[in-house]
Amino acid sequence: MGVKEEIKEIAKGALGAYRTLSLLSGGEKDAILEAFSDAIDLNREEILAENKKDVEDAKGNNLSKALVDRLFLDESRIDSIISAIDEIRNLKDCVGEIINEDVRPNGLKIKKVRVPIGVIGIIYESRPNITAEAASLCLKSSNVSILRGGKESLRTNRAILKCMEEGGKNWGMPKGAINLIQTVDKDAVKYLVESDEFLDLIIPRGGEGLIKAVSSMSKVPVIKHYKGVCHTYIDKDADFKKGREISVNAKCSRPGVCNAMETLLVNREIAKDFLPELIKELEKRGVEIRGDREVLEIVGNKILAEEEDWSSEYLDLILSIKVVDSVYDAINHINKYGSKHSDAIVTENKKTANEFFKGVDSSSVYLNASTRFTDGGEFGLGAEIGISTDKIHARGPMGIKELTTYKYQIEGSGQVRE
Amino acid sequence: MGVKEEIKEIAKGALGAYRTLSLLSGGEKDAILEAFSDAIDLNREEILAENKKDVEDAKGNNLSKALVDRLFLDESRIDSIISAIDEIRNLKDCVGEIINEDVRPNGLKIKKVRVPIGVIGIIYESRPNITAEAASLCLKSSNVSILRGGKESLRTNRAILKCMEEGGKNWGMPKGAINLIQTVDKDAVKYLVESDEFLDLIIPRGGEGLIKAVSSMSKVPVIKHYKGVCHTYIDKDADFKKGREISVNAKCSRPGVCNAMETLLVNREIAKDFLPELIKELEKRGVEIRGDREVLEIVGNKILAEEEDWSSEYLDLILSIKVVDSVYDAINHINKYGSKHSDAIVTENKKTANEFFKGVDSSSVYLNASTRFTDGGEFGLGAEIGISTDKIHARGPMGIKELTTYKYQIEGSGQVRE
Repeated sequence: MGVKEEIKEIAKGALGAYRTLSLLSGGEKDAILEAFSDAIDLNREEILAENKKDVEDAKGNNLSKALVDRLFLDESRIDSIISAIDEIRNLKDCVGEIINEDVRPNGLKIKKVRVPIGVIGIIYESRPNITAEAASLCLKSSNVSILRGGKESLRTNRAILKCMEEGGKNWGMPKGAINLIQTVDKDAVKYLVESDEFLDLIIPRGGEGLIKAVSSMSKVPVIKHYKGVCHTYIDKDADFKKGREISVNAKCSRPGVCNAMETLLVNREIAKDFLPELIKELEKRGVEIRGDREVLEIVGNKILAEEEDWSSEYLDLILSIKVVDSVYDAINHINKYGSKHSDAIVTENKKTANEFFKGVDSSSVYLNASTRFTDGGEFGLGAEIGISTDKIHARGPMGIKELTTYKYQIEGSGQVRE
Repeated sequence: MGVKEEIKEIAKGALGAYRTLSLLSGGEKDAILEAFSDAIDLNREEILAENKKDVEDAKGNNLSKALVDRLFLDESRIDSIISAIDEIRNLKDCVGEIINEDVRPNGLKIKKVRVPIGVIGIIYESRPNITAEAASLCLKSSNVSILRGGKESLRTNRAILKCMEEGGKNWGMPKGAINLIQTVDKDAVKYLVESDEFLDLIIPRGGEGLIKAVSSMSKVPVIKHYKGVCHTYIDKDADFKKGREISVNAKCSRPGVCNAMETLLVNREIAKDFLPELIKELEKRGVEIRGDREVLEIVGNKILAEEEDWSSEYLDLILSIKVVDSVYDAINHINKYGSKHSDAIVTENKKTANEFFKGVDSSSVYLNASTRFTDGGEFGLGAEIGISTDKIHARGPMGIKELTTYKYQIEGSGQVRE
């Protein structure tokens, strides 16, 4: 069987499974999720053995240290996977919830009811925990998942999927409810995103190349989980202490994630007073500074930021800094170079904060807080499948509610339209 | 300037206009909408003169009678356009509405706020009323519109746009807030849907060819407004009188629209008793019947339905009829051949109705009512930009609320993440 047929077969089976899965009750789904945890717990050794092979190959292929670290599992990381599944199981089931109800003048009773989306394709990096979490989030929201993880994690993903499949089967999970694309053929993604007769949504997470390729090839609707070029703007009315603490946290607490700050904008009026101490603190933590000419005049002897720095997601201990005229200048910079992810203002001026809230076209806009809070758990949405940088359907952290849609159920007593 | 540059110029200007438009208050937007109505009212003669030329050309090019009728304007149709704009103006402004508000344990106050989507491209048939209504719906919801109507309506669209532009300008509408693509070059659509650096959403309405081309070319998210292959299922526990009235209304009241019934499904147990009288009534109204073998055995001498009939949107006085075993058989047929638009069951059995509600994967599912009710006005959503057949972001009728998205506004007092 060729790759195209293989993908079509999986997608067709997924749609078939959806018809059954969508009829399961909340209790039935939770029993399946419990079986996922149990099976992973019971098969730790096998998962770790497969992961060891993946990690050895990845090292042999000179994969970066950061990527190997994301791929690597040990007992405590397996514990984390199990608790993530348990956390998802404990979320309130939202499928079937009545969002709105209305009786029209002609007597028609119109209910807007929350329903699953259907079959969802998720394309992600070599992070085995995503395999378990994405499958569990989709199952909790009555969606069928088709997973395509990075090729370096294939053995680990296969071992995790086997646990979930075998565990779930005993508790009534239909065949094809969770799927893993196992071919490493690159065309698999192309065939998957062309399968609009079977799939309802594609969620690509990852680098620029992948996201661009998926968006331009896909016939299936796509919600992109793209890069985070996040900003912090220090206003002229900022509290300097808050400004420093927030900037250091946003840059240094976990530089490799998408809600970390990449660019700091500083109002000209306070730049000279604010920057020197902040930069000292950042450099103490190993941060490389790339400033515009004005920044360099203030703190001297740093790297000059180039045009491409303003749109770079470093994911590393690097920070670009620019001096701006006003909050409007900051808003324009963010809307031009940012990625509609998370951006913050530090100010004590309520009016300026409101201009920033209105003007910045990002999913999460902060006043006097670190951009690092953009996260399903921190927002109270529960576990997340990722962070949408699109504006359609779901923005920012996507939890189980964002993995649903609605339908109208209309009850009549023989009404016809004139 | 080539077509590509022309489209890029429009799209770039649209994004610029959005930054200003998104800051207008509800009152300012309503003043602009009032100016639209006034300008169209004052320039009736010019619009009708341009429309006359479009209609003459269309007739000369042997456009079908139905399509010429959609293109044609007279005084009373101009009145309808004006009242449609007035109705949109009178809708409650939903932009800025707080959808949800939460204070987290760490003191962060998280508001989920309704905001416009941004720049929306709308591709539609030669229906000049859509030009006015789509531009008005987008403006009311603070979105910038880029309109691409059918080429046969270009002169009329241009005249309508000129009215709105000149009227709106006097009331603070930014340049580029409403745009009409005026080149008839087919590549214009391709370049438009590739402009993901400027556009946030594409809404294509129309035939299969257009929708498929747009979905596969677009880098911008798409919400399809596709065909309506709508079903009515007459259950064994149906009230026959309701079944006949609903069927006749769903098929005959306006056969050319997307919420009209195209296929009738009848439970085997009652087919013999139910069908003869219904078919007599339908034929009296000029409906051509295409039945499966069992239907033909009951009512004789009709056309035998072929496989392609089950997925056909006739938009005409033609009805395909099929006998099914059960509600499950009906659900499977609808999910296989339908278009996720509107489907009805006629039954007095509440349990069967619930199975149908749960099983049918369509935006609007009816019990004992005509599918013809799928409409923004009938659902109480106000004027609509169309009816989505996608599952992402908006399903069914899309009013101004469905033309918005949200952002998170997070207020802190210096919080950082551990």
